[in-house]
Amino acid sequence: MNQASTAGPASGAIDMFARTRERFFIPDGVRYFDGNSLGLMPKAVQLNASNVITHEWGHGLIHSWHDAEWRTLPQRTGAKIAALIGAQPQQVIACDSTSVNLFKVLVAAVRLRSGRKTIVTDADAFPTDLYIVDQVAKLFGLTVVAVPASQMFQRLGRDVAAVVLTHVDYRSAEIYDMQTYTQAAHAAGALIVWDLSHTAGGVPCDLDGCEADFAVGCGYKYLNGGPGAPAYLYAAARHVAACQQPLAGWFGHAKPFDFAQQYRPAEGTDRFLCGTNPVLGLSVLSLALDLFDDVSLDDIRATSRRLTQTFIDLVDAQLAPHGFDVASPRDAARRGSHVSLRHPQGYGVMQELAKRRFIGDFRTPDYMRFGFAPLYNTGEEVAELVGAIDDIMTTHAWDQAAYRQRRDFT
Amino acid sequence: MNQASTAGPASGAIDMFARTRERFFIPDGVRYFDGNSLGLMPKAVQLNASNVITHEWGHGLIHSWHDAEWRTLPQRTGAKIAALIGAQPQQVIACDSTSVNLFKVLVAAVRLRSGRKTIVTDADAFPTDLYIVDQVAKLFGLTVVAVPASQMFQRLGRDVAAVVLTHVDYRSAEIYDMQTYTQAAHAAGALIVWDLSHTAGGVPCDLDGCEADFAVGCGYKYLNGGPGAPAYLYAAARHVAACQQPLAGWFGHAKPFDFAQQYRPAEGTDRFLCGTNPVLGLSVLSLALDLFDDVSLDDIRATSRRLTQTFIDLVDAQLAPHGFDVASPRDAARRGSHVSLRHPQGYGVMQELAKRRFIGDFRTPDYMRFGFAPLYNTGEEVAELVGAIDDIMTTHAWDQAAYRQRRDFT
Repeated sequence: MNQASTAGPASGAIDMFARTRERFFIPDGVRYFDGNSLGLMPKAVQLNASNVITHEWGHGLIHSWHDAEWRTLPQRTGAKIAALIGAQPQQVIACDSTSVNLFKVLVAAVRLRSGRKTIVTDADAFPTDLYIVDQVAKLFGLTVVAVPASQMFQRLGRDVAAVVLTHVDYRSAEIYDMQTYTQAAHAAGALIVWDLSHTAGGVPCDLDGCEADFAVGCGYKYLNGGPGAPAYLYAAARHVAACQQPLAGWFGHAKPFDFAQQYRPAEGTDRFLCGTNPVLGLSVLSLALDLFDDVSLDDIRATSRRLTQTFIDLVDAQLAPHGFDVASPRDAARRGSHVSLRHPQGYGVMQELAKRRFIGDFRTPDYMRFGFAPLYNTGEEVAELVGAIDDIMTTHAWDQAAYRQRRDFT
Repeated sequence: MNQASTAGPASGAIDMFARTRERFFIPDGVRYFDGNSLGLMPKAVQLNASNVITHEWGHGLIHSWHDAEWRTLPQRTGAKIAALIGAQPQQVIACDSTSVNLFKVLVAAVRLRSGRKTIVTDADAFPTDLYIVDQVAKLFGLTVVAVPASQMFQRLGRDVAAVVLTHVDYRSAEIYDMQTYTQAAHAAGALIVWDLSHTAGGVPCDLDGCEADFAVGCGYKYLNGGPGAPAYLYAAARHVAACQQPLAGWFGHAKPFDFAQQYRPAEGTDRFLCGTNPVLGLSVLSLALDLFDDVSLDDIRATSRRLTQTFIDLVDAQLAPHGFDVASPRDAARRGSHVSLRHPQGYGVMQELAKRRFIGDFRTPDYMRFGFAPLYNTGEEVAELVGAIDDIMTTHAWDQAAYRQRRDFT
C-alpha cells in the first residue's frame, strides 16, 4: 500500500479495486450498489463458516469457548472495527444489534449527565435510532428535541444530557462533521453518541481524535458481515469506569464464570456486553473484517469520493434531462459513500433496474439510493448504472408517460 | 410415533434414540453430557448454513429479505419453539439473547403492574437473570426480593409486580411446578416470567395451559441451535396489546419498511423485536428445531426421565462409596433433564473425565453437572460415564489422597 499511496489516491484506488474486488463473490451479471445495505459475501466466509460449524462447534463443542477463543470474539472483532473508525482497540466491542447497543450507550450517557433533562437528536435519523431515543427518554423522564442536524447547535443548552447523531445520513449521505458536532455538544456540557452504520468501511472517521464519547454501528453494510451481522459499540476510555448500562448480562460481569449472584461490571468496555454472544455471526464478521487488513483508510476515502463523484458527474450529464435530482451533497468532503437521487418515478425505475440486475435500493418517499463500496465497486460499473437508467427513461414508454403526468401536477 | 407411543414410553424412547441420534454429529470417542450447555451439531446444519451463506446471501443478496423470507425468521423459528413449550405459535419469537429478552418482558410486566413496588425472584437463579432483574428494579425504583424458590410463596403480597423464576434450576435440575407458581403469582395479582433455558427440548411444559404471562429461553442448549444461538421470548396473547417494551427497534414497528419517524408497535408479539435480526443464527436454529418434528413431547419426557433415573441408580450403586452426592431431585417428576452430583474433588474428576473424552461441566462450588439430551444420549453412554467416574476414583491415587485430605477437614 505504501507504493500506491505515494503514487496518489487515484492510482492507489485503482490498484485496490483489482485486489480487493477479487475477494468478493459477485453473482453473474449483477452490478451491486447496495453494499450500504448488505455488503457482498467475502469468498473466504464460505470456508470459514464451515470451519466454525464443523470444526469448532461439531468437533470442539464446549471446549471451543476456550480452544477456539469464542469468549474473546466480541473484543477481537471490535478491535478490527476500531481500526476503521479511529479508535484504540480496547474501546470497541462487537455484540447485539445497533438498536440494542444504542440503548446501552445512551442510557450510560444520560446517567453520566444525570440532572439534565433533554436529549437532542436528528429528526431525520434512521427511525430505529429515533425510537430508541424516545424509549430512553421515557425511562428517564427526559424530553427529546428532534430537529434537523443543522439546527442542533442552537438547541444545545445546559439542559442537554446527550446528543445522538448519525455521522453519514442514511438517505442523503451527508456527513455531519464529527469534530464540529462533538465540540458543540461538549461546549454545552453534553455527551455525544454517534451512529456509524453508514460510516465504518465506507468513510473513515476519527472517534478518538474528535474526543467523541460513544458510538454504535452495524456489521452488515460496508463491513460485509452478512445479513443481521452483530453490531458494535464504542465507549471512550475516559468514561468507561463510570458507565452504568442496564443490559447488564453475565458476559459484562468482571468474572462471568464465577457465577456470582451480585453483578460487578467488567473494568473495560466489556461491561457493555450482555448475554451469550452470537459465535457464528461474530466469526463471519471477524473474517470479513480481515479484508480491510491491507487497505489504507486514505485509499478507502479516495476511492469512495472518486466513485460517488463519477456517478454525480454522469448523472448531471446524462440523467438531469430526465428530471433526476442529486439529493446528496455535491461537495465531496461532505458526502459519504452512497448517493441518493430523487425522482417522482424513482420506485418504478428501481424496479426496472432490478430486472436488469442492477441492485440499489429505495427509501421513501422518492429516494433512489446507490451505495459505492470502496472495496469492490468500480468506475466501469458506475458508468453502466447511469447508462441503464438513461436507457430505462428513454425506452420505457410507461415510465415516461407516468413521469410526465406526475410532473404536470407537481 | 403413534405405534411407539402405544408400545409405551420405554419402547418409544429406544426407537427414538436410534432415529434421532443418527441426525447429530458426534466426534469419535466422545460421550457428550453437555447438551444442557451446548447441544451437539445437527448434521443438516452444515449443509444448510452453507446454503444460507452461499445461496441466500451470496447470490440472493438483499432480495433474500423477501425471497428467502429472512424477514419472518423470528416468527417462523418462534413457532417451532412454541410447539415445545405449550404455546400457540404466534406468541413466541426468536431474537436477541436470553438476557436481552428477559429485560424486555420484565419491563413490560412491571409496566403492566405499575404502582407495585417489588420483584420476587429465585436467589439461586442463573446469575444473568439476577443481574437483569436488578437492572429493571433500578430503572423503575423497585425492590428485589431474592429468596429460594420454595420461600417465594410467603413473599407474594399485593406489592409484588412480577415474579421471575427459572423452570428448571441450572444446577440442581429441580423443576418448579409451572402451574403452582403461576397460580400463586396470579393470586397475589402479580405477573410471572419463566426462564425456560434448561426446559425447552429437554422437559415439556405448558405455558398456555398454566396461563403463564411471559417466558424467555436460549437456543443453544437442548434446542441445538449452536454457540450463541438466538434466544426466544413468549408473551401471552392476552397481554400483548398492552405491552410496552423499551428496546423498541424498527423490527418491532407495525410497518418497519415505512421508515416512520414515530414508533407504532406491531400488533402481536413482533413488538418485542428490536434491531435487524441475526439471519445466519436464526437459520441454523430454525433448522436444528426441525429435528423435533417427528418426536412427541411425551417421548422426550419419558426418555429424559429414563436417562436421568438410570444415571442416579448407577451412581447410588457404584459411586456412593466414593462420596458422591446426588444434588438433583430423586423424584423424577421434579427433575429436569440433567443431574448434578456434588463431590469435594468434583472439579478434578471433571478434568479426568475430559481426558477420557467424557464431557460434562462444572458449576461452583462443587457441582458436577451432566446433561442428558433426549434426542441423542443413550443408556449405554450413561453406564459408561458412571463406570469412568468409578474407575477414576479407584485408580487415581492423587484423587483419592486429595479427596481423603479434604474429607478430613470438612
